[in-house]
Amino acid sequence: MAKEIRINAFLAFAPTHLSPGLWAHPRDRALDYNSLALWTDLARTAERGGYDALFFADGISQYDVYGGSNAAGVRWGLQFPRLDPLLLVSAMAQVTEHLGFAVTSSVSYEAPFLFARRMSTLDHLTRGRVGWNIVTSFGQSGSRAIGQADARPHDERYDLADEYMEIVYRLWEESWEDGAAVRDRDARVFADPARVHEIRHEGRFFSMQGTHYSEPSPQRTPLLYQAGASNRGKDFAARHAECVFLSSPTAHLIARDVADVRARAAALGRDPASVLFFSLATVIVAPTSDEAQAKWQDIQRHVSLEGALALFSRWSGIDLSKYSPDDSLQYVKSEGMQSAIEAFTVADPGRVWTIGELAVFNAIGGKGPVFIGSPAEIADALESWKAQTGVDGFNLSHALLPGTHEDFVDLVVPELRRRGVYKNAYRAGTLREKLYGEGHAHLDAPHPAATHRAAFIEENTHA
Amino acid sequence: MAKEIRINAFLAFAPTHLSPGLWAHPRDRALDYNSLALWTDLARTAERGGYDALFFADGISQYDVYGGSNAAGVRWGLQFPRLDPLLLVSAMAQVTEHLGFAVTSSVSYEAPFLFARRMSTLDHLTRGRVGWNIVTSFGQSGSRAIGQADARPHDERYDLADEYMEIVYRLWEESWEDGAAVRDRDARVFADPARVHEIRHEGRFFSMQGTHYSEPSPQRTPLLYQAGASNRGKDFAARHAECVFLSSPTAHLIARDVADVRARAAALGRDPASVLFFSLATVIVAPTSDEAQAKWQDIQRHVSLEGALALFSRWSGIDLSKYSPDDSLQYVKSEGMQSAIEAFTVADPGRVWTIGELAVFNAIGGKGPVFIGSPAEIADALESWKAQTGVDGFNLSHALLPGTHEDFVDLVVPELRRRGVYKNAYRAGTLREKLYGEGHAHLDAPHPAATHRAAFIEENTHA
Repeated sequence: MAKEIRINAFLAFAPTHLSPGLWAHPRDRALDYNSLALWTDLARTAERGGYDALFFADGISQYDVYGGSNAAGVRWGLQFPRLDPLLLVSAMAQVTEHLGFAVTSSVSYEAPFLFARRMSTLDHLTRGRVGWNIVTSFGQSGSRAIGQADARPHDERYDLADEYMEIVYRLWEESWEDGAAVRDRDARVFADPARVHEIRHEGRFFSMQGTHYSEPSPQRTPLLYQAGASNRGKDFAARHAECVFLSSPTAHLIARDVADVRARAAALGRDPASVLFFSLATVIVAPTSDEAQAKWQDIQRHVSLEGALALFSRWSGIDLSKYSPDDSLQYVKSEGMQSAIEAFTVADPGRVWTIGELAVFNAIGGKGPVFIGSPAEIADALESWKAQTGVDGFNLSHALLPGTHEDFVDLVVPELRRRGVYKNAYRAGTLREKLYGEGHAHLDAPHPAATHRAAFIEENTHA
Repeated sequence: MAKEIRINAFLAFAPTHLSPGLWAHPRDRALDYNSLALWTDLARTAERGGYDALFFADGISQYDVYGGSNAAGVRWGLQFPRLDPLLLVSAMAQVTEHLGFAVTSSVSYEAPFLFARRMSTLDHLTRGRVGWNIVTSFGQSGSRAIGQADARPHDERYDLADEYMEIVYRLWEESWEDGAAVRDRDARVFADPARVHEIRHEGRFFSMQGTHYSEPSPQRTPLLYQAGASNRGKDFAARHAECVFLSSPTAHLIARDVADVRARAAALGRDPASVLFFSLATVIVAPTSDEAQAKWQDIQRHVSLEGALALFSRWSGIDLSKYSPDDSLQYVKSEGMQSAIEAFTVADPGRVWTIGELAVFNAIGGKGPVFIGSPAEIADALESWKAQTGVDGFNLSHALLPGTHEDFVDLVVPELRRRGVYKNAYRAGTLREKLYGEGHAHLDAPHPAATHRAAFIEENTHA
């Protein structure tokens, strides 16, 4: 199925992810974000709809650019409070069989040894259905909360991330050889000490030595997601990512980034087609176009303008409380240009946007397109976007939780299946095998993780 | 029910906890430790039997004293591999309604801000059924794995722990006032920024500032467990612990520690009866005495002597591989006396123990008594131990997983209920309310956590 469209749900373990104000909608359940039932119900719905994974964003920096404080963020519950998504996974795994769970975790805050154990734990408990969205953290409030003096400069963050990856790859791939966990009741051997190795690392950012505290899990290294948009971030994605997450409302910007990262991956010897791209999108669907438009109007009535401005202030680094919603972006740009705003003028070069328009534009589902229409119109739009951009699928944001996903599963998935562009059933095996096919439970060369897996075997062969 | 006996299961998320070699027993399921089903089944069994909590030990230091390497630990799977118990909780909460989950986490390795968010997440998802066993870490291999040069000296670890507690109490109790999470759909206010506060801490070990990333969870501060055995550890327990875990095969040593910690708690103004004590024990029960003895013989045939020596070498700090199993403890003591060995000679002062006897003595269930017999004999033994020591209940270790607990629930619990010394049903509410009664969801003054909860309210009152 060459044209197969892949779908993840893009989520935050919070009252608001990307659609500010919608938790107050009478049919929204996001206020139950801190109870298990919301998430186990959503996981069941997603598996019924053949989603590849639930993809959880995360972070601990406040939305405190707007007005110079976190007041708007607190008032609207903008990704604050936000709970730890790793702790949701086992309950969702308990009620599903195939669905993947991609969790975001920053390399900036935690010791690689403990993090590696956490991901191996989840990979065991899900039987190989876990992914990791690798991020570096730039928020000063997050750094201060951890007790670090300041967030590191951008490129240094990625240097640290490369070193972090080196350590966790070695723990996941090299510390325990295949078959080291003998588990032999008759011989009374749990594991063979000769095939379990201590990892020693001395680097610029980290020094450690330790034996991985988990026997090999089904995938060893979790499926790797990344979303770097900068030059340095794209290099990192080209080297490490199996799935890349892109956000832009403009197809040709997505297309440019897909081509760019694929070229960088190819330059590193990787098969460019093996890097899968997911484009942020929000789908508002109803049985007919008119009903979909009515649903869209109803949703827009619940949007919080203040919440949208606070979200966008953080993303752009510009305190939009200093401007009127009627000020033009040209005016804001003259005050301090940011790439986040650039994207919008590129999207529609003939138009002069106001701040208020920009906020509303972003208010539902964040910085991706919103597709509104009947099931056939949505399927057309998804296929067209995929053809224009070269992405493999979508990270679907929601307006209503879980309503937006229930609508997608009930209305769009059957239409995509009719068109032969959507899986009718999951493949067997781990999350990685579901994406790459049988025999691909582990990363293959020349991915750097695979290089590490061979390390001790080669040493032994040459010895 | 003044004589009520409380029961926790004492567990490790590993193939072996305290009964080395038993995973190889044909009726043991511990090899499934890395699958959800073992733990969700055990949670259901424990709730059926009215257990207060599953209590998970944890740690990342190798059992590498014996023979100067971790080879025996790896071969027998001695608390290695060991996975992260926090990640099991949501699945077990999903299949139970009342059972508590106490997880061990060290203050030595993780930023208080992130840990506080983790525990709040679990307290939300379990609806207030989570506990924290506070430990400081002394293993050099754990410190090196984290990238710390060396484990800190003993008393300094507790100084750091006191400061860590100060920070997490402030995050849990002070950062969000009661009612700050308004959650008002009509007024469209998620939370009131005026009642959500940033915590700033500048101390000897930690400096941080941040607003807790979770709205108040049912218990705010999780139920606090501790197991300090040293003078400094007992002071820490007297100040912070609600539940204290003690391990000794000797009733009068337990009695001494119960009285000692209660006296220290009273000196700090706490009600000494509000500190609950749990004594490590293992129960081998069958319908008749003879069948229980037969079960015990069968279990002993599966014990690993090497595993037992490796466990005890770590606990005592003495490499027992240097001695013959026939060497007497007197001889070992002359080489380097340790309190862990002292306990055994005190237990039976007239007897000269050999190393082999000591290892076998510890081989099932660790450093607590093993009670073997019919349900009535076990109930007698538990009541007698409770009366002799002043403990409130037991942390039950197992020989077979989950068989030892299934036996206890099926055979001992009904006998205890007949005697009127065991709950017939759980109390409503959070884990803390189940132990302390209605209205006790939160810690009360003079516990230091309660002091912090009042901080902002008092400031406002006096302003």
